[in-house]
Amino acid sequence: MPTSSAHPEAENTLASLGEFGLIARVTAGRSQPAATLLGPGDDAAVVAAPDGRVVACTDVLVDGVHFRLDWSTPEQVGRKAAAANLADVAAMGAVPTALLVGLACPADTPVATLEGLADGLWTEAGIASAGVVGGDVVSSSQLVVSVTALGTLEGRAPVTRSGARPGDVVAVCGRLGWSAAGLAVLGRGFRSPVAVVGAHRVPEPPYPAGPAAARAGATSMIDVSDGLLADLGHVAVASGVLIDVRSAAFAVPARLADVGRALGVDPLHWLLTGGEDHALVATFPDAPPEGWTAVGAVAEGAPQVRVDGREYTGDPSGWDHFTR
Amino acid sequence: MPTSSAHPEAENTLASLGEFGLIARVTAGRSQPAATLLGPGDDAAVVAAPDGRVVACTDVLVDGVHFRLDWSTPEQVGRKAAAANLADVAAMGAVPTALLVGLACPADTPVATLEGLADGLWTEAGIASAGVVGGDVVSSSQLVVSVTALGTLEGRAPVTRSGARPGDVVAVCGRLGWSAAGLAVLGRGFRSPVAVVGAHRVPEPPYPAGPAAARAGATSMIDVSDGLLADLGHVAVASGVLIDVRSAAFAVPARLADVGRALGVDPLHWLLTGGEDHALVATFPDAPPEGWTAVGAVAEGAPQVRVDGREYTGDPSGWDHFTR
Repeated sequence: MPTSSAHPEAENTLASLGEFGLIARVTAGRSQPAATLLGPGDDAAVVAAPDGRVVACTDVLVDGVHFRLDWSTPEQVGRKAAAANLADVAAMGAVPTALLVGLACPADTPVATLEGLADGLWTEAGIASAGVVGGDVVSSSQLVVSVTALGTLEGRAPVTRSGARPGDVVAVCGRLGWSAAGLAVLGRGFRSPVAVVGAHRVPEPPYPAGPAAARAGATSMIDVSDGLLADLGHVAVASGVLIDVRSAAFAVPARLADVGRALGVDPLHWLLTGGEDHALVATFPDAPPEGWTAVGAVAEGAPQVRVDGREYTGDPSGWDHFTR
Repeated sequence: MPTSSAHPEAENTLASLGEFGLIARVTAGRSQPAATLLGPGDDAAVVAAPDGRVVACTDVLVDGVHFRLDWSTPEQVGRKAAAANLADVAAMGAVPTALLVGLACPADTPVATLEGLADGLWTEAGIASAGVVGGDVVSSSQLVVSVTALGTLEGRAPVTRSGARPGDVVAVCGRLGWSAAGLAVLGRGFRSPVAVVGAHRVPEPPYPAGPAAARAGATSMIDVSDGLLADLGHVAVASGVLIDVRSAAFAVPARLADVGRALGVDPLHWLLTGGEDHALVATFPDAPPEGWTAVGAVAEGAPQVRVDGREYTGDPSGWDHFTR
């Protein structure tokens, strides 16, 4: 018990409140969805897995690496940590059911910070109709948030990265490039435009689009955490196919165009390479369902991702098509 | 991608091997149990949950807090991290099915350390018949291992902390006090006796005893991670009962008696308060099943844990009965 209460009268840090005090505080009054059969407070939680299978994934976020508490509120960090995991569940074609949170943080972390983090985790879990069902809090030198998300496939087969077939349409759902644009703005010391900075702080993955894509017959799917081209690269390798993306298929949002002009960056570069928006990209044998935008095609060939038939150099200034 | 490969020719640290290289290396050639329907390598894993429910819990271990890499090998740390979680699953009366691992560590962590850690996680998972189905590796200043364990209740109700009833027998299964004795030895600069030091490095939770207790009608159960009296305290509070432990019921192992004599500590103190052995303690309406030792009784009264009818002071020298 590294965080036991030395000064119970001063309950403003993790050290003073203690692990159990903190857990009691951040779980009090939360309502759980129906899938939570047994919530926090025991050795383990029990979560419904109605079709006899559970989808599970873990992502870890570290202060100073994946977020900065001077750029984001604790609530935004909590939402981002939850979103990264919930999007992975959606990318399997599954519906999220539950989160578990492993939190390591300095003993002098203010309780308000941890409450904000917990609020963010609950908020984002709620958006995806999932509950926060368990976790652990320990002492460390740096804030580390490890989130595990669970989900249900509702009787369907999981949509993996390996099912893309030549002739499939590549389509995306959700925002691309917004988080990268926001990061570029923050990195230059600005705090606006609020829309792009906010997108970096809190992604908005289109959770229901994952199961919808599965129902529509998606052959492969992944969430865009490292960048569209990088993540499509995982699909290309796992499926053994060549993926060609058409740059003209992307409508560059006016706000990203504005920011790109101000910073001297072709915004299409953000769309193609920016991560952390957690859009979904999938392949479909036919036209993609409503809400998805076709942006490319799957072909036979050595596993790789091309843009307009060529290798993407990563240097937008050298990419003629991008100069607009 | 904080850990991308800058020097792929020198693959001896996480920074040089990269996240994907490390994951490929530590997952290659592993065999998965039947419950692993989809293993590592996609956005998420898929694990069997045959009775339509999944038991899930998360525990976080931090270098310098929960283990020391100068006292334990990486493999021992991996085993301990897995055991802490697998024991929580067993304490619900469930059979472990899978682990997910969130790993944060310095970029200069040797790959050999991470391979050892992975080996330990797989070894302990294998002992409990579970698979390691997913995870994440990121860069941080301090080694943090967050493990999530999943399990199946095989159609039974979970055995919680809140079901103890007056008249129940309190019984334990597994080792008590060994890890505490080992820690005491290590803390004084010794590396032997090997048996107790080894017990601190790698606990040996009696995983099958959890489901067996559930089948035998256990009314409550918890794993001993913080110490028998402390963890029974959680049961007493959750169940609203008084628990009385009989000190005479404990057979002090000869090795612990030897170490206690050498260090001037009553070994019963370790049995009553030592954590991290992850024994199971449960309450039964009747005699406990084979392999369990009755050590006390549940009674009506304000929630608390007593030893021989009295409050345990935590000072073994002041506890007459313990002076032997």
